[in-house]
Amino acid sequence: MGNYCFGIDVGGTTVKCGLFHTDGTLVEKWEIKTRTENHGEAIVPDVAKTILDKIEEKGIDKADVDGVGIGVPGPVTESGDVLVAVNLFWGFKHLAKELEELTGLHAKAGNDANVAALGEAWKGAAEGAKNIVLLTLGTGVGGGIIIDGKIVHGAHGAGGEVGHACINHAETAVCNCGNHGCLEQYASATGIVRIASQELARTKDESILRNSTLTAKAVLDAFKAGDEVAIRIMESVGDRLGGAMAIFAAVVDPEAFVIGGGVSRAGQPLIDCIRKYYEKYAFPTCRETPISIAALGNDAGIFGAARMVIQEK
Amino acid sequence: MGNYCFGIDVGGTTVKCGLFHTDGTLVEKWEIKTRTENHGEAIVPDVAKTILDKIEEKGIDKADVDGVGIGVPGPVTESGDVLVAVNLFWGFKHLAKELEELTGLHAKAGNDANVAALGEAWKGAAEGAKNIVLLTLGTGVGGGIIIDGKIVHGAHGAGGEVGHACINHAETAVCNCGNHGCLEQYASATGIVRIASQELARTKDESILRNSTLTAKAVLDAFKAGDEVAIRIMESVGDRLGGAMAIFAAVVDPEAFVIGGGVSRAGQPLIDCIRKYYEKYAFPTCRETPISIAALGNDAGIFGAARMVIQEK
Repeated sequence: MGNYCFGIDVGGTTVKCGLFHTDGTLVEKWEIKTRTENHGEAIVPDVAKTILDKIEEKGIDKADVDGVGIGVPGPVTESGDVLVAVNLFWGFKHLAKELEELTGLHAKAGNDANVAALGEAWKGAAEGAKNIVLLTLGTGVGGGIIIDGKIVHGAHGAGGEVGHACINHAETAVCNCGNHGCLEQYASATGIVRIASQELARTKDESILRNSTLTAKAVLDAFKAGDEVAIRIMESVGDRLGGAMAIFAAVVDPEAFVIGGGVSRAGQPLIDCIRKYYEKYAFPTCRETPISIAALGNDAGIFGAARMVIQEK
Repeated sequence: MGNYCFGIDVGGTTVKCGLFHTDGTLVEKWEIKTRTENHGEAIVPDVAKTILDKIEEKGIDKADVDGVGIGVPGPVTESGDVLVAVNLFWGFKHLAKELEELTGLHAKAGNDANVAALGEAWKGAAEGAKNIVLLTLGTGVGGGIIIDGKIVHGAHGAGGEVGHACINHAETAVCNCGNHGCLEQYASATGIVRIASQELARTKDESILRNSTLTAKAVLDAFKAGDEVAIRIMESVGDRLGGAMAIFAAVVDPEAFVIGGGVSRAGQPLIDCIRKYYEKYAFPTCRETPISIAALGNDAGIFGAARMVIQEK
């Protein structure tokens, strides 16, 4: 076992990079630009170069590097193949294999939300837990399932795609995935704005939300300030989200739920609102399962990516 | 690695026992009575005795036995502790430890539905699959989740408790677990009869179901015979069940779903009815996931139990 490894988190704009000690200490982090032109053909070579440059800069013996873990925004199979990554302009790609060839280092790849879940289970909000469910509430709803300390990639790279759990068969609006009634349509930032618009149109009740541009942040701020319309909106979101989490608990019964993404900045009031409905719908023995806000923020991806190449030891 | 192992499946009336070669060949199976009197205190000693008797009868060297796996009807933790098993009149019990002490053999314990799932993934309908979801549609709805070839026990022994996924927040009838709207209330034999009663009361349409005692078997037979009311009933059940399975797929994205239990005797027409709604609600990349009828019948439990002690090698 070497002393170093790399964790890489590829986003649509920047690639976050981390050099770690294999005990989980972050030695250094930095970013490079994500060059998406020409179907993103430079991205993997750029990642390989920045890793090799760092090894040289630090005077590290390459034999002392355990490997490179990399997270990308798209479905990834257990063998490290990316099926598609729309934001990177990638089609199918043997990502882990390509990165191994370019760096001469052992490589593992995973979906970015799954990798973030592994990071939170390793060094974040659920530190030390072997079984967790992470939900990231951002523009969409992503997620990651960790079982026995490992990512559940799924047979089609769709493990942890909890944002596309279809929870409302009566929904008429269409989700980005083409279905109707996905969790993402209620619990993402976009979904919260959608529910808020509906509620503001349904009622004439006064609300501070009527005086400004309607954003998820505005709704969450009004909710925390005690605005009654905003409270009704977030109770509705909490009902959908807590209800979905209760179903997930009946499947994998995790030690902990972790909530990340921009919406999670609303903090404890959001957790309290989710928890109320989670407990209402959960199977009795799972009712006490902790629900926490993600702790690693934007670093969850590099931590989880690093963990992928360490845990195999 | 030895040449033999035992797989034990404890039910409320009988204990099914299997002696296996460690390659998965069933050498012999037999049953003993489940003695539930005095809080079921004789059950584990009875199991230990029948194992030791069989070893002696066959002239097997005990060192050639890898261990004993045992499945029981109740929540079981990863460490082999039973939290409660109502049908056996057990409270908390260190089951694996007790069985080890009484037999001198390595022992592992699991929930019976989880263990059956492992059996089906090992030698049954999903032979060779590492990731499956099993649903058993019987008096209730049980289930088991296999990830990476292993049972997902869950943090509270509730892994695979998919029958208590709360899928209908509008339900007013109470489930056995105390919640409202659990999958079990629609897709179990009891649930099918309940839905059938409602449909028969709602409409005056002619149906062969009006001429006989209402049982799940009668509904399924009428469904297969083309009775229009029975078809409506089963479409409603298929909608609930297929919809729930689509959510499970968004969590763990299994290679295969396996449907067992008495209701599964309805065979392919039932699968077709579930599949129609599963595809309607599933995340696009999971739509083709196979759904099969369980293949091992009542032997799934002994196969899965045996597998528990083999797979650790």
